[in-house]
Amino acid sequence: MQAHRLIIRVRYSESDQMGYAHHAAYVIWLESARIEMMRSLGESYRELEASGVLMPVVECQLRYRRPLRFDDEVELRTTASPTGPSRLTFTTDLLLQDTPCAQGVVTVAAVNRAGKPVRLPARLGSTFAG
Amino acid sequence: MQAHRLIIRVRYSESDQMGYAHHAAYVIWLESARIEMMRSLGESYRELEASGVLMPVVECQLRYRRPLRFDDEVELRTTASPTGPSRLTFTTDLLLQDTPCAQGVVTVAAVNRAGKPVRLPARLGSTFAG
Amino acid sequence: MQAHRLIIRVRYSESDQMGYAHHAAYVIWLESARIEMMRSLGESYRELEASGVLMPVVECQLRYRRPLRFDDEVELRTTASPTGPSRLTFTTDLLLQDTPCAQGVVTVAAVNRAGKPVRLPARLGSTFAG
Amino acid sequence: MQAHRLIIRVRYSESDQMGYAHHAAYVIWLESARIEMMRSLGESYRELEASGVLMPVVECQLRYRRPLRFDDEVELRTTASPTGPSRLTFTTDLLLQDTPCAQGVVTVAAVNRAGKPVRLPARLGSTFAG
Repeated sequence: MQAHRLIIRVRYSESDQMGYAHHAAYVIWLESARIEMMRSLGESYRELEASGVLMPVVECQLRYRRPLRFDDEVELRTTASPTGPSRLTFTTDLLLQDTPCAQGVVTVAAVNRAGKPVRLPARLGSTFAG
Repeated sequence: MQAHRLIIRVRYSESDQMGYAHHAAYVIWLESARIEMMRSLGESYRELEASGVLMPVVECQLRYRRPLRFDDEVELRTTASPTGPSRLTFTTDLLLQDTPCAQGVVTVAAVNRAGKPVRLPARLGSTFAG
Repeated sequence: MQAHRLIIRVRYSESDQMGYAHHAAYVIWLESARIEMMRSLGESYRELEASGVLMPVVECQLRYRRPLRFDDEVELRTTASPTGPSRLTFTTDLLLQDTPCAQGVVTVAAVNRAGKPVRLPARLGSTFAG
Repeated sequence: MQAHRLIIRVRYSESDQMGYAHHAAYVIWLESARIEMMRSLGESYRELEASGVLMPVVECQLRYRRPLRFDDEVELRTTASPTGPSRLTFTTDLLLQDTPCAQGVVTVAAVNRAGKPVRLPARLGSTFAG
């Protein structure tokens, strides 16, 4: 399976007084990467929520190797695989001019409005099943 | 009417590469000031929303005079007055060691879940009326 | 002078429990609009700061008319004009499918690292001078 | 060693359209917990940076078990231990009315302005050494 690619540009508000992109901003970029990856597979996360399926994050892990800075154009390369009947795990590499700078691994769980686990949407489950 | 007082501490994530607190952070602090002011008047904004009354911001204006920085303890002094049957305007002065650094003026409108204007909650309307 | 156009997509993290884009997110989008507008005029704000000219916000005003939501593609149309030897005022209309939803007016001041006002960068000053 | 305790209140801007505190907000709270823990040990992170020692995050991991919501008062219980001559790892439990809701583990590295690893500040290194 090919990695999904997304380019984001680091916002000024995401810089901190160290002069780096603040580490919490990466968590938000990873979310955009997941949503755009789903969209590229024909699944609108907005519509998914409207239909009653939420996908909250249950775990996330980030490793920061090289700092990113305001105005950098960062490439996010994301792959995903099911890690349970209602769980998807996304792995995202963040690169600046092809140099890996950070990596994030995020697991989301498909639940209904009451918080009960539900099956992954067919399109996502089968796409990632391999 | 006495101004409501709230102390916030500038978070590291709120600093930017200029070394200042980013101007968008002030907007968020003003929101905390409104919510804490309401609480001090016996009105929980959380419960207000649960009861079906939302108070979205319809206008905000900020003037930045002196920069604030990470770790600063900032005092927010807030007053409010009704500016319509369903509108409240909050004026907040932001001070650092008694020196005014910025001012925000924010107007919120009481609406129901359908977005229709509703009367201000009695406690707020009457508190500020006079 | 033609308005600069930028499309942003509302991030999930920018939604709030009302189901709207939080009003502080607009302030951050306006900043992206200013930076992209400068870039389109050949002025990199990153390089400007590196050269010792900062452009902190001294005033901002927002009017919110219609809510925006997660995943909306919002068009920002921005114009700018000098409002002093070291000040630029940017006016941005935010539209959803050509419907105006909000407007922001932001004034920035060109200062050096010591916080002293400096002349607007020639490219910006003359571009906007009319 | 006793855990450091910090209470934060979930901000409205930190809620998302699921009605939960957004998962990126936790990352920011963890940062406040680290900074307040250092302060309680007599080490001001602001002064540390002013003296030329930065402590960027090199890794963070979060597990989300029960959602937190706007206006919740969340208790953060943090412990720390050195995981290298220039590294500290902080473990924070997030509790709502004594119920564990999430856990974060964050490693920071002490570096100088050039990004080179430096020894942990004596006060922190010896405090946590056991």
